[in-house]
Amino acid sequence: MASNLLRAGHEVVVFNRSREKAEALISDGARVADSPAAAARDCEAAITMLTDDRAVDEVVFGEDGIASTLAAGAIHVSCSTIGMGLAKRLDAEHRRRGQGYLSAPVFGRPDAAESRRLLIVAAGPAEIIERMRPAFDAIGRQTFAIGEDVAQANAVKLCGNFMIASMLESFSEAFAALRKAGVAPQAFLEAMNALFASPVYANYGSVIAGGKFEPAGFALRLGLKDVRLLLEAAEGLEAPMPLASLVRDRLLSAMAHGQAELDWCSASLVSARAAGLE
Amino acid sequence: MASNLLRAGHEVVVFNRSREKAEALISDGARVADSPAAAARDCEAAITMLTDDRAVDEVVFGEDGIASTLAAGAIHVSCSTIGMGLAKRLDAEHRRRGQGYLSAPVFGRPDAAESRRLLIVAAGPAEIIERMRPAFDAIGRQTFAIGEDVAQANAVKLCGNFMIASMLESFSEAFAALRKAGVAPQAFLEAMNALFASPVYANYGSVIAGGKFEPAGFALRLGLKDVRLLLEAAEGLEAPMPLASLVRDRLLSAMAHGQAELDWCSASLVSARAAGLE
Amino acid sequence: MASNLLRAGHEVVVFNRSREKAEALISDGARVADSPAAAARDCEAAITMLTDDRAVDEVVFGEDGIASTLAAGAIHVSCSTIGMGLAKRLDAEHRRRGQGYLSAPVFGRPDAAESRRLLIVAAGPAEIIERMRPAFDAIGRQTFAIGEDVAQANAVKLCGNFMIASMLESFSEAFAALRKAGVAPQAFLEAMNALFASPVYANYGSVIAGGKFEPAGFALRLGLKDVRLLLEAAEGLEAPMPLASLVRDRLLSAMAHGQAELDWCSASLVSARAAGLE
Amino acid sequence: MASNLLRAGHEVVVFNRSREKAEALISDGARVADSPAAAARDCEAAITMLTDDRAVDEVVFGEDGIASTLAAGAIHVSCSTIGMGLAKRLDAEHRRRGQGYLSAPVFGRPDAAESRRLLIVAAGPAEIIERMRPAFDAIGRQTFAIGEDVAQANAVKLCGNFMIASMLESFSEAFAALRKAGVAPQAFLEAMNALFASPVYANYGSVIAGGKFEPAGFALRLGLKDVRLLLEAAEGLEAPMPLASLVRDRLLSAMAHGQAELDWCSASLVSARAAGLE
Repeated sequence: MASNLLRAGHEVVVFNRSREKAEALISDGARVADSPAAAARDCEAAITMLTDDRAVDEVVFGEDGIASTLAAGAIHVSCSTIGMGLAKRLDAEHRRRGQGYLSAPVFGRPDAAESRRLLIVAAGPAEIIERMRPAFDAIGRQTFAIGEDVAQANAVKLCGNFMIASMLESFSEAFAALRKAGVAPQAFLEAMNALFASPVYANYGSVIAGGKFEPAGFALRLGLKDVRLLLEAAEGLEAPMPLASLVRDRLLSAMAHGQAELDWCSASLVSARAAGLE
Repeated sequence: MASNLLRAGHEVVVFNRSREKAEALISDGARVADSPAAAARDCEAAITMLTDDRAVDEVVFGEDGIASTLAAGAIHVSCSTIGMGLAKRLDAEHRRRGQGYLSAPVFGRPDAAESRRLLIVAAGPAEIIERMRPAFDAIGRQTFAIGEDVAQANAVKLCGNFMIASMLESFSEAFAALRKAGVAPQAFLEAMNALFASPVYANYGSVIAGGKFEPAGFALRLGLKDVRLLLEAAEGLEAPMPLASLVRDRLLSAMAHGQAELDWCSASLVSARAAGLE
Repeated sequence: MASNLLRAGHEVVVFNRSREKAEALISDGARVADSPAAAARDCEAAITMLTDDRAVDEVVFGEDGIASTLAAGAIHVSCSTIGMGLAKRLDAEHRRRGQGYLSAPVFGRPDAAESRRLLIVAAGPAEIIERMRPAFDAIGRQTFAIGEDVAQANAVKLCGNFMIASMLESFSEAFAALRKAGVAPQAFLEAMNALFASPVYANYGSVIAGGKFEPAGFALRLGLKDVRLLLEAAEGLEAPMPLASLVRDRLLSAMAHGQAELDWCSASLVSARAAGLE
Repeated sequence: MASNLLRAGHEVVVFNRSREKAEALISDGARVADSPAAAARDCEAAITMLTDDRAVDEVVFGEDGIASTLAAGAIHVSCSTIGMGLAKRLDAEHRRRGQGYLSAPVFGRPDAAESRRLLIVAAGPAEIIERMRPAFDAIGRQTFAIGEDVAQANAVKLCGNFMIASMLESFSEAFAALRKAGVAPQAFLEAMNALFASPVYANYGSVIAGGKFEPAGFALRLGLKDVRLLLEAAEGLEAPMPLASLVRDRLLSAMAHGQAELDWCSASLVSARAAGLE
């Protein structure tokens, strides 16, 4: 993302807990800061991309956090997959400080980030989204302006991940039943690829059918974290999501079998085990 | 399907309970028979495409059924979505009579059938599948040879429908939660279309988002029938499919609300009602 | 049941597929018949107690079935756990022959039958229930007249078994989680016994906590059969029962692990395995 | 509980946010304190009984909280239904201050508390449990020493509530299906009372069958809170509890229909609505 911003002619100051990762960007023209606070000082917009709610909380509100130095009128753009509650708190706290805030989580694995194919789901004041559009255009292939309420972008991102997780569960159950019927996973996958004609089905389906879950494209424990955030959001919205509950229970069973660091496609092993396979 | 067979130069005799529908094919070169038995006499292959297990049972084994006239060595190709049990019985009964049998259920709505875009999932003796290939090529865009056991094709078809039904459920839950968060269904759908890039997601997602469930592209009670067949198959295979159970319960709630003849996308109303919407 | 009828002074003719079992009752005063038809000839009431729908169908409507000899005005009392559909068919067929019919399934294991502690759930014409009351009083401790529609008794029996199966599932999940918290099953069971003060909880809870599932008090595959009958009934009634679906999936997973002939309390192993125990 | 302690001859200082409630105990011999801190000063044991985690956190660690005044060697006994996480934190924090801590949640409604029929589930150092036994004997009818790890008592309490909630769900589904079969709830309830012979089934079953959910014996939103705490505990233990997930989703649907302050038995309306009743 930083490389693409630099490539598009933006001035970029980077901070990363692993300083080497930040320094790798120097050759592309980035400056490296010693802290989030230092990185955010004097910029128009501070873009954060972090693992979870706790990390965002710390990088924003912790000692040397960006909230302490971000100028009035400057914008914090949070691209991480976080909960609706934290998004609302970020919005309120930045507002209180005269700073702007956007929730702009993204869809796409690291390779999609590198090749500028991220999908950006943004919510917040329309005027701020427009102001950020050149940056979004530099890092992604499409930006969706979801609404004025920042937490809406986070809800959409969590629901999008849920759509993928649901597909994983449906693949997993179908593969398990079909294996017991003597049908090769690959044969079913080919039919599904012809039916859905979706690269997402093709990619995930092939990982599940192949059964190779290391190295993880997306660690199972992070998938569980996202489903947990979704269920918390759904509880706040008073909207039952039984399929999300089912997915959570499957991921939890996978955790109990030591699959935390495997790819979340390995959740398919839960259906296989329940069917007495392996 | 009959039109496309005629167009490809095959000789076709048709039977339909509504004789007018059969007669509409006369101008394309079809002959019309008075009964399944009459239609199947002297042909190389009898292709059946019917609503459910009971209809197939009757058309094949009933008085004037095709089993009574199909020549030894001729083939019955069942394209209907039927259960694994019936498929096995068809196979055994035809075998006993010296007749051939293939399960070859298809994916695709009537418009796909008209435009030769059906996907054909075939199972049975490889030699018979090859013999039928010209006919399959005439009616579909791709044929998948799944295996030697005829019921495998039916299992794959039922699992394919389950994949679609699961997608409906995930859309339904996401839309319901997001509506309570103030996000327009259309906004979420656009993001999902960019993410999945699948015409199936685009079509179904748009029907759910639009909320227009009449006339039905696929009646909800038929969707329920397919899930029931899948669960029976899965029980026979001793493979639990909790997501299929969930989908069944949603469709059943829709039935209880008088939605039997609505499009099965109207199952989305179940999630909406559970969330207190409408 | 036959012994208790004899003890109460009733005249009893018995038929059992294993003739020895029938003959064991001769010393109590029973006569032994060579077929269901022979047993039902000249009696006031024919009481059937069989494993499943198929067995009842055969014993009633098969060659030498009781329907062929039961006198007009005599009553068939079906005590088996069967589906609502078969109950309705029995009612209609007996009616057509001028014979009476009652559904009167019972709650209670063999030892409860021996000691006259069965609970009898009867449905059918009130007048016929009254006529049968002396017989019911001879075999059970309480008779519940549920309604005029015979299938209602079967629905109540299936729902009662579902209540027990649900309790098994809740115990199973609690025991599994608590074992991972280091709590001994026995310690939890004692608290639950104090809380629920129910012999059913005490008995089943102790079997699960003890983990000894052979010999089976009630075979798991029969438990699955009952849940299947319940789900069919619920589908006919258009009433979703997600907890019954969950129980079915758990029993199915147990079947996949070879537990068909173990006690259905062994369904608890499914929760244990899902939690990574054992 | 305070009255019963006084009646047993203990010296009691009370604090309640609603001072009137505390003052009502003066006639029984209680002294009234102005803050939790004041109440806890100079006592042997501080017993807290509060609504939720947040209230316990505040009363213990807040300004004027009991942690600030409880003497070294004195014991904090937490009787509230709280999460395993908070229990562990309470244990660690009190330990750090040289204070003792027990988790001792109770089963029983207010009337059970009044009549000394509470069930007490205690965990912590055996020696401290013994030291508290006279107090436990004064307020309850039985005390269960679950283990040395304080959070075990909380896990047992949450699982016990889950057992009750599961029973509610099974009753709800059965009643809904049976109503559609024309069976009166009361008729089913009588059979279940004969079968389970449990006062818990009798009481809850009768509330559900009666359909009167106000005033609430236990508010539905508090039931949802307890299930949430259980699911958090189960996630920490890596033990999937799909039945708990189902119960949570039903309670959430009830919340969406404005039932937060109704009795949690009103969760039965969710099954009724899903079946198209009302």
